[in-house]
Amino acid sequence: MDDLLDKLSALLGPGGVVTGGDMAPFAFDWRKIEESTPSAVLRPRSTAEVADVVRLCGQAGVPLVPQGGNTGLMGGTVAKPGALLLNLGRMDRIRDIDPLGYTVTAEAGCILANVQAAAAGVDRLFPLSLGAEGTCTIGGNLSTNAGGILTIRYGNARDLVLGLEVVLPDGRVWNGLRSLRKDNTGYDLKHLFMGAEGTLGIITAATCKLFPRPRQVETALVAVPDPAAAVDLLARLRGASSDALTAFELMPRFGIDGAKELLGRDVDPLAAPAPWYVLAELTAGTAGPALREQAEGALAAALEGGTVLDATFAESEEKRRQLWLIREGLPEIGRAVGGAVHHDVSVPVARVPDLITLAGKRLEKLLPGIRPYPFGHVADGNIHYNVARPRGMETKAYLDRAKEITATVHGTVRELGGSISAEHGIGSRKREEMAVAKDPVELDLMRAIKGLLDPRGIMNPGKVLP
Amino acid sequence: MDDLLDKLSALLGPGGVVTGGDMAPFAFDWRKIEESTPSAVLRPRSTAEVADVVRLCGQAGVPLVPQGGNTGLMGGTVAKPGALLLNLGRMDRIRDIDPLGYTVTAEAGCILANVQAAAAGVDRLFPLSLGAEGTCTIGGNLSTNAGGILTIRYGNARDLVLGLEVVLPDGRVWNGLRSLRKDNTGYDLKHLFMGAEGTLGIITAATCKLFPRPRQVETALVAVPDPAAAVDLLARLRGASSDALTAFELMPRFGIDGAKELLGRDVDPLAAPAPWYVLAELTAGTAGPALREQAEGALAAALEGGTVLDATFAESEEKRRQLWLIREGLPEIGRAVGGAVHHDVSVPVARVPDLITLAGKRLEKLLPGIRPYPFGHVADGNIHYNVARPRGMETKAYLDRAKEITATVHGTVRELGGSISAEHGIGSRKREEMAVAKDPVELDLMRAIKGLLDPRGIMNPGKVLP
Repeated sequence: MDDLLDKLSALLGPGGVVTGGDMAPFAFDWRKIEESTPSAVLRPRSTAEVADVVRLCGQAGVPLVPQGGNTGLMGGTVAKPGALLLNLGRMDRIRDIDPLGYTVTAEAGCILANVQAAAAGVDRLFPLSLGAEGTCTIGGNLSTNAGGILTIRYGNARDLVLGLEVVLPDGRVWNGLRSLRKDNTGYDLKHLFMGAEGTLGIITAATCKLFPRPRQVETALVAVPDPAAAVDLLARLRGASSDALTAFELMPRFGIDGAKELLGRDVDPLAAPAPWYVLAELTAGTAGPALREQAEGALAAALEGGTVLDATFAESEEKRRQLWLIREGLPEIGRAVGGAVHHDVSVPVARVPDLITLAGKRLEKLLPGIRPYPFGHVADGNIHYNVARPRGMETKAYLDRAKEITATVHGTVRELGGSISAEHGIGSRKREEMAVAKDPVELDLMRAIKGLLDPRGIMNPGKVLP
Repeated sequence: MDDLLDKLSALLGPGGVVTGGDMAPFAFDWRKIEESTPSAVLRPRSTAEVADVVRLCGQAGVPLVPQGGNTGLMGGTVAKPGALLLNLGRMDRIRDIDPLGYTVTAEAGCILANVQAAAAGVDRLFPLSLGAEGTCTIGGNLSTNAGGILTIRYGNARDLVLGLEVVLPDGRVWNGLRSLRKDNTGYDLKHLFMGAEGTLGIITAATCKLFPRPRQVETALVAVPDPAAAVDLLARLRGASSDALTAFELMPRFGIDGAKELLGRDVDPLAAPAPWYVLAELTAGTAGPALREQAEGALAAALEGGTVLDATFAESEEKRRQLWLIREGLPEIGRAVGGAVHHDVSVPVARVPDLITLAGKRLEKLLPGIRPYPFGHVADGNIHYNVARPRGMETKAYLDRAKEITATVHGTVRELGGSISAEHGIGSRKREEMAVAKDPVELDLMRAIKGLLDPRGIMNPGKVLP
């Protein structure tokens, strides 16, 4: 290892190889569940340097753990002893931005918010948006196929990509940095590397699609009687608004009561309490009254049909921020309750009500008084099915039941044809469950591809594949 | 072979194995360039039957050529002697349609127009649309990653897919028929099979996204001074219309003059002739004047800036059909001219003007008087760069120069970072050129994946890979 680190230091120059206490900003688990103990952190500045690093590590048989902003929730960037952490944070150039062609080419280490800002600088929208956007990097976003709040309109991270540059596990560089909207020359390789969490190679740069910037935003908080009504409202709003719907978040009453009780925030803008809420946002490329009229028309029809109980629109940016605060408060409330058990799952959109009802009944049977507060991106069928402990139950005693709780939620998800990881990925934490959750043929194909591309198993070992 | 055909007959039952003259409806090349001479045509009715066919053929080492509606333009479904044609036309069920979840699950042999109709039947849009839609099948569309006229708004065929069912080259069935909008459990395998033209397995069914049906359509013919103005107009219209733009077709004056001269159709709706035209279509989910106002606003600004020379909107469905007739006439004109050389290429959107100008100059130098009439989906950078012979030149003498003409166009495309196949695929016809057009690392990866999944090489041999 010492010999390898000497070679790497010579290759990467000052600041390129970080060891000892200086590794602290990189060698940790965002959720503080696992320990990350790499032998060193490598910080290359170019694709050529990444390729050289991979070649040297391959020769030495030393595993590499690629890392972007290290905001992943599944332990994907945690390194075991003997592994090297490959942090891409110094590869942070926007290589090209083309407003006419609506594309941007960014290096893997670009912070997501900086890619958004570069797009805004040429009057365009880069529509990937998530909580960690000020810290996470585009390379990490693509390696984990990040989701977020705008996917209903713009898709997941992989849907935004036209081309990739990838360093393969044998150190060769695949230059697939095309900005073509149509290209049918052979197999589409880029999708193999996106969502693979660095187990098949290292994404060093990407060319992504840009979109027109919205000029008009309408945000509404809508009270609904139950999740089935939310799904019905979703179908209506999509139909009535030319798919102008960019966010559609389902929230339980817990988001309003919990904010008052635990965060001391009175966030309820409606006259009467309702069991469920939808935070809906629509955007248009042209300012004007049309968008609001469309949304109001759909809501009025839904109100008449009993799908909607009440609704309020944000009449100012300040009011809009207040409505979003209800949604953004839910993870905070989770932390304030203490010891909530989290699940990032998805089911077909029309099965979201079944998921919520069925899993809720089963959890209540498992542990009476348990408080599920499922919320999230219902338009993607992606529910953060989080579950708080019964009032009065000790956190430790509750967390001792976490495995049963997760088995109940994930079992229900599987019954409904869903996925145990909607947007957070697998990393180290859901790896073992993959053996149960996935079709054996599919797992076999994944293992075969891993064996083909990374026969020595040096790329992020112990992640994704069971 | 006789033994194998006996087994296959027993397996597939009446009508399942077609031989001799009865193969005529299947064993031909749409463009009549190659001969298709399979030993038999197989017509399975279920995924299980397809799997059994693949297993039996694998054991016998007999190659299979999968076929949908047989409308491909690159010879991808042409069978050599000793191969069997596997026609999926009897697998034509819509297995499920979910208007609330905006999804449809269709078997590979469903005719595209039938999938569109099924979606319309539940007030939804299936937005894949191309000339052959009354004959081509969804399985063929996905195997070739079909494009078409609505890709600017809805993406290519692969972008519409949530899940696939695939029979692998070893006869196993991968049931990846999920309807999830978000699923980050391991590698995304479905994109490997789409666009692979049946060389990695046989797509037997797919779950696809649906969209809201448009209620308002605005269609305009816009005269522009040059292709650069068209690209500028595209950026403006996208920005001004919330991406309501669903079609944006560039056409040369040849489309209007040629229609008059060769088809006897007077299709020019504008007062003065212009060198180039754009056919732009915008759609909205709500009827009303807003869409037209947005489009008119953008056109007025472009007219003032000199990007637009003149424009007319279709004020009725009949007028709309007339405008589309100009675009649809271009392939007809090509046939009427006789012996045109076709190219389906793409470049980054902003490089479309360079492609047209540069290739035009080089062709004129190669063969003075030559008449390029590039047209097509400029919003995807996808130009059908077709080239008619000089007036007075014999068709045969012209076609003797076809290779040089193609080398000139494709060489220019490569210089501009483009693709030699935008939407038609590779098949047998562009296969050899892949060796030049693709990065060696990428080709090597493709070959490795082919070798991994189909080590015996029985799946559509002689296609795609050089």
